Amino acid sequence: MGSLDTQPLKGFRDFPPSQQIRREKLFETIRQVFRKHGFDPIETPSLEYWETLSGKYGEEGEKLIYRFKDYGGREVGLRYDLTVPLARFYARFHDRLPKPFKRYQIQPVWRADKPQRGRFREFYQCDIDIVASDSILADAEIVSTIDDALKSIGIGNYTIRINNRKVVKALVENMSIPDRENEYARILDKLDKVGKQGVLKELMDKGFDKHVLEETEKLISTSYMSLDELANVCNNRYMEEALRELEELGTYLGAFGVSWKLDATLVRGLDYYTGNVFEVILEDANVGSIASGGRYDHLIGMFMKEDVPATGGSLGIDRILSVVGEGDERTYSHVLIAYMEDTLVQAIELSKKLRENGINVDMHPDGVNLRKQLRYAHRKGIPFVIILGTDELESGTYTLRDMESGAQYNLGEKELLEKLKSVVAV
Amino acid sequence: MGSLDTQPLKGFRDFPPSQQIRREKLFETIRQVFRKHGFDPIETPSLEYWETLSGKYGEEGEKLIYRFKDYGGREVGLRYDLTVPLARFYARFHDRLPKPFKRYQIQPVWRADKPQRGRFREFYQCDIDIVASDSILADAEIVSTIDDALKSIGIGNYTIRINNRKVVKALVENMSIPDRENEYARILDKLDKVGKQGVLKELMDKGFDKHVLEETEKLISTSYMSLDELANVCNNRYMEEALRELEELGTYLGAFGVSWKLDATLVRGLDYYTGNVFEVILEDANVGSIASGGRYDHLIGMFMKEDVPATGGSLGIDRILSVVGEGDERTYSHVLIAYMEDTLVQAIELSKKLRENGINVDMHPDGVNLRKQLRYAHRKGIPFVIILGTDELESGTYTLRDMESGAQYNLGEKELLEKLKSVVAV
Repeated sequence: MGSLDTQPLKGFRDFPPSQQIRREKLFETIRQVFRKHGFDPIETPSLEYWETLSGKYGEEGEKLIYRFKDYGGREVGLRYDLTVPLARFYARFHDRLPKPFKRYQIQPVWRADKPQRGRFREFYQCDIDIVASDSILADAEIVSTIDDALKSIGIGNYTIRINNRKVVKALVENMSIPDRENEYARILDKLDKVGKQGVLKELMDKGFDKHVLEETEKLISTSYMSLDELANVCNNRYMEEALRELEELGTYLGAFGVSWKLDATLVRGLDYYTGNVFEVILEDANVGSIASGGRYDHLIGMFMKEDVPATGGSLGIDRILSVVGEGDERTYSHVLIAYMEDTLVQAIELSKKLRENGINVDMHPDGVNLRKQLRYAHRKGIPFVIILGTDELESGTYTLRDMESGAQYNLGEKELLEKLKSVVAV
Repeated sequence: MGSLDTQPLKGFRDFPPSQQIRREKLFETIRQVFRKHGFDPIETPSLEYWETLSGKYGEEGEKLIYRFKDYGGREVGLRYDLTVPLARFYARFHDRLPKPFKRYQIQPVWRADKPQRGRFREFYQCDIDIVASDSILADAEIVSTIDDALKSIGIGNYTIRINNRKVVKALVENMSIPDRENEYARILDKLDKVGKQGVLKELMDKGFDKHVLEETEKLISTSYMSLDELANVCNNRYMEEALRELEELGTYLGAFGVSWKLDATLVRGLDYYTGNVFEVILEDANVGSIASGGRYDHLIGMFMKEDVPATGGSLGIDRILSVVGEGDERTYSHVLIAYMEDTLVQAIELSKKLRENGINVDMHPDGVNLRKQLRYAHRKGIPFVIILGTDELESGTYTLRDMESGAQYNLGEKELLEKLKSVVAV
């Protein structure tokens, strides 16, 4: 039918096996860690009523929702995140769910954002949340689970930065600008992007007083601090609460064996979080935060008549993938059985036996010559080939070829199975 | 924010843990079987250009595509199936892919269909396809993989019905109505739904000759037949080709150990398939076919300048789920550690040790009393609870409670680990 464009939409991606195998393995690792920490899975629909989504993400966010009318004339939108769906889900099922409710959810979300390096219009979120608990231990369980997931993925040197949303409250109260809390927080939030001078310049431009600039300069000149140092920054009821919550969190994280650093300049999602917040950054790659989260006690209850405390975290799987890379696996197949016309039925029977033993077996379906079958194995990246010719059939042995080294082994069936099983086990 | 409706859109579903756990396990089983048979995964975007989707699904199908204009004014549509995206994907990457290209793809699709029992507007498809091979062995690999998946799922008695698309061609030629092939095929296709009399009545209503009715009655009075019996139905070039392809398929399926039945009345997707076709029905549940597929040699090439032969199959995961049911697992958690205020830190340390041994551990994050922690474990469905009081701490032992039987054991750490590992291994 001619040459239609074969590109996907801008900001959307095809994943060939070399990428998808790595993604599948990453997702499976993450799921296993989430389960280990007592989280159970849910899924929610890709499409929601517009009224479910609207008014939840702020003006800027709402503009990015893929929104349309369906054939029934209903206003609908594609899932923008996994938190609002969780809130609707929890309101629907809360009387049937255990409390607290610990769920994980791994699904794509859509945002009609400007596509740019590392930013996509369709991407997966991997979220864990503990709903209906105001305990700091729940905060600790979230951070510890994220830490465990990153260790299991094997992502290299990372730092868990922790702060408490009440620290900003304490700062603005101390600087006598409590009415400019959100504005101040938003500027501080840009520290990673614009640097210290950038923050100070913007504060000045926005007409903040000299003493605000001085206090802020003091704050941001220490990258990480101890709880004692934080206590010395200022002293009011917000700081007391923040210190208490951070100290308790620190005790639990210590028991979990999680290393972290206190970063008093950390803000994150200012209109959203209410208590402890965290983000994880990589030391050796400049990709922004690869995980983040915190406590948000006023969001989950939005479809109910009451507030429901909650705490959660999210792994930035696309950023993680951009760091761990494509991987060198292009196929799950462990072995190709190369056959001749006379040995096809025996090859099928052997494939059955190997598969029953957990080995991933491929066969070239066309009756082509040995060279073409080997070329197929090479191109697909299959590490081993069993050559099953009439000689092998007569002698009751198999020729196993290591495609990387080129080495060939002559093996009986039992040895063949053992050799391949050891390959699979790696 | 009051009492917004908490229901999802009609035809869309929330999956609480009791359902999602079963689904995840099913998907994982299916993925493992697909990999065992040499298939590798890909993913494609949820949204495609409208021109990629349009003209591919017939008038009726096209009406069901969720279609809208994005903010850039582009006409786009939500994925309707996984086959057209595969065709675009293959055209894009074919020079980098091994040939034949064996891929699996497990992703949701969307259809603005009338919601009804067992029919949804968002549902997963689990597809395998072998692209760029015209070999009957490829057809056999597809059927054998589907068979293996159904056996691994443990779905009960099923029958694999097989036919060849050329049998209908042979029939209409034999009855001298080759110009009414599609019309005839469409009526025959309704046999399962309307029964023998229904088919005969519709043929009469549509003005087919008496001899067509007689021939058809003969054909549909035998539910399954042998290849010899099929050869006796009529004899022309189409029947010869059909018999040759079915016989070769039968030889390979025999070697794979797959049981099947020849059903000459099987039509399936008449405008689409070109050779061997199959469907799988359950003997003990009336849910329609749970898997189907066949050879289609003119579809994959639609984004290229040439035809590309292909053969594939699809598992109807929603129908399978409706048969295997919800499952009795409500949580992945194996054990809850119940702690007292004095034993919290030890409980955290124990959770760490157990998780390192592959055990899924939950803890109630609130510092509540033992009864509430047990109630939480019961409500969530956690099978075991470790009670860690100060007595246990002093004696260096743990009390393990079997939540189903109520039995309690007093165990040292080593025994505790062994006991729980044996639970996990089940």
